[in-house]
Amino acid sequence: MTTDGNVPYLLTPGPLTTSAATKQAMLRDWGSRDKDFIALTAEIRERLVSIAGVADSHTVVPVQGSGTFAVEATLGTLVPRDGKVLVLVNGAYGRRMLTILERLGRAATSVETAEDVPIDPAVVDAVLAGDPAITHVAAVQCETTSGILNPMGEIAAVVAVQGRRLIIDAMSAFGALPTETTDYDALVASSNKCLEGVPGLAFAILRREVLSASADNAPSLSLDLHDQWRGFEANGQWRFTPPTHVTAAFAAALRDHAAEGGVDGRGARYRENCRILIDGMRAMGFEPLLSTALQAPIIVTFKMPADDKFDFETFYDRLAARGFVIYPGKLTEAASFRIGCIGHLGSDEMHGAVGAARDVLKEMGVTSGAPA
Amino acid sequence: MTTDGNVPYLLTPGPLTTSAATKQAMLRDWGSRDKDFIALTAEIRERLVSIAGVADSHTVVPVQGSGTFAVEATLGTLVPRDGKVLVLVNGAYGRRMLTILERLGRAATSVETAEDVPIDPAVVDAVLAGDPAITHVAAVQCETTSGILNPMGEIAAVVAVQGRRLIIDAMSAFGALPTETTDYDALVASSNKCLEGVPGLAFAILRREVLSASADNAPSLSLDLHDQWRGFEANGQWRFTPPTHVTAAFAAALRDHAAEGGVDGRGARYRENCRILIDGMRAMGFEPLLSTALQAPIIVTFKMPADDKFDFETFYDRLAARGFVIYPGKLTEAASFRIGCIGHLGSDEMHGAVGAARDVLKEMGVTSGAPA
Repeated sequence: MTTDGNVPYLLTPGPLTTSAATKQAMLRDWGSRDKDFIALTAEIRERLVSIAGVADSHTVVPVQGSGTFAVEATLGTLVPRDGKVLVLVNGAYGRRMLTILERLGRAATSVETAEDVPIDPAVVDAVLAGDPAITHVAAVQCETTSGILNPMGEIAAVVAVQGRRLIIDAMSAFGALPTETTDYDALVASSNKCLEGVPGLAFAILRREVLSASADNAPSLSLDLHDQWRGFEANGQWRFTPPTHVTAAFAAALRDHAAEGGVDGRGARYRENCRILIDGMRAMGFEPLLSTALQAPIIVTFKMPADDKFDFETFYDRLAARGFVIYPGKLTEAASFRIGCIGHLGSDEMHGAVGAARDVLKEMGVTSGAPA
Repeated sequence: MTTDGNVPYLLTPGPLTTSAATKQAMLRDWGSRDKDFIALTAEIRERLVSIAGVADSHTVVPVQGSGTFAVEATLGTLVPRDGKVLVLVNGAYGRRMLTILERLGRAATSVETAEDVPIDPAVVDAVLAGDPAITHVAAVQCETTSGILNPMGEIAAVVAVQGRRLIIDAMSAFGALPTETTDYDALVASSNKCLEGVPGLAFAILRREVLSASADNAPSLSLDLHDQWRGFEANGQWRFTPPTHVTAAFAAALRDHAAEGGVDGRGARYRENCRILIDGMRAMGFEPLLSTALQAPIIVTFKMPADDKFDFETFYDRLAARGFVIYPGKLTEAASFRIGCIGHLGSDEMHGAVGAARDVLKEMGVTSGAPA
């Protein structure tokens, strides 16, 4: 894995470290209604539907903005005004879907588990059986709050048996982990997670027959996926000025993804990154929040050390000074911090990050990272 | 004006040609919650409020996405559910505001004039006097459909006398043309117009006391400016992953803008670009849609030539082959085409574009660009 002198390295859940080729793709200005850019947009849409393995049934609508913009656009476009959504929550991103639905004025309910406990498909089954008003289920595949992986294949099976529609937030998983199902109306993800593009662009992979029946649902013009899809079908163009440079970078990143062997190749590198990180941190006494079985190879949450000499802000700053930027804060309820293992990073960088953490601990006089 | 080898040149209303320094600012990955990026965001917000000359009364909230995203976010955040908006329409962007308000479920009415006729402040005055339910007036300063300039100073004066709130879409004007008033609740613009950043980022300049009273108005989470503003006030961070590279490019572009002498310097260059373009095209017989008095130095709409040998698609393709990309289509009701004069372009490029147009006409066997 070449690193292209990409210092500082971002060990965060995104934005993340991108390749030099991806960044250099931004050194050109594109006319957004020119044929070249129309072809670039088409290439991205085709590559995404092909990665998902749903080219026959689904289509892709890119959405400028962060992943949250695309989640809101998908919920607003697909859930009718008289729909009701069951949101499966074990972290901040599931909770955010509830907030979005409240804003959109769509009925919603939830199944919630602790942030270190995966969603139980049997509970989902029981809730659906008991509430026929629920039309849609919205689930997060990898909850970035803790890094936990939810059993998407089993959840999809339950939703199908109960005859409801599935919307998957695959933000932190798509491109590196198999989705485990193609039985969804929508899968939402972002350019700047496992696909290693730059931030500013997200997308939804949408079942064509569902999307085509979703005109006028959206309470927003900017975030109306049906309206944008009709535009693409008509002339291949974005309705409103797209982020041309970000789009060009995404196309370059998707070519890298294919060259690395797609989801299998990308996933293998991330699993090795994750193993190096966890092994190295464990050797210093740190303890991951999650058991190995629940841990996705995306981001690792470590429990806060008991040692009084450990000061997180100092730890963060000194790692950053050594070229490794980790996530500056916590999202979990448990006292913890997070280190990502995705992005254009390989074993050299992960060993480097672990070595830097060891040096910083020594400087702070911390003998063990063990939690209380 | 150096051109940095920026071929093709974009003679469009945005995305436009940016400087090499602006594009090169995207060659670094930023941690979006890191101190460096927080400082970059703060710099942008300060520079924008300073360009507008409203640092004492207003604050800036950037919005990722195109200008339309920021227009929708502003209308959704500032107009309460029982508000009513008078939209001043003489082109596609005024009409788009009506569409947005309909989606948002906000009451709206309009004053409309032909696309080559500026809004008449006396008519606005009469409509406001006759409809006390109108709470807000939304106006487009430079309507990019035709390139027409509306009399924003006079409109603002009428709105103030009538005691209503003003929202300005200054998309194609801000940074090159004075706003003529500071008496507005919101001014919306984009990074990739006269400020010469790359696309993917827009912003609203908002009256602080109005914004702080606008909690819970927005029917969207992603496009809630009040919620994002509270985030900036709390910790300087974006709520959701921002387009870090686009933001870095915008900061570089804003430094260039200051170095060029701000609005005066930028406006002077664009006026000269516009003069070269119109003089050169007139010499070939082409006729602008607008009289000189109404023409903003942003984009020029030319009437379609009468000569049967003129084929617009051929004209477009051959100009593009020579390195000059113009707008590929029309927005006006009149048969016309548009050539922009904004972006990182100077007199050399404008003379080059005119020369290329002359060569292409000759190739097509067109003796005059005169309209019917």
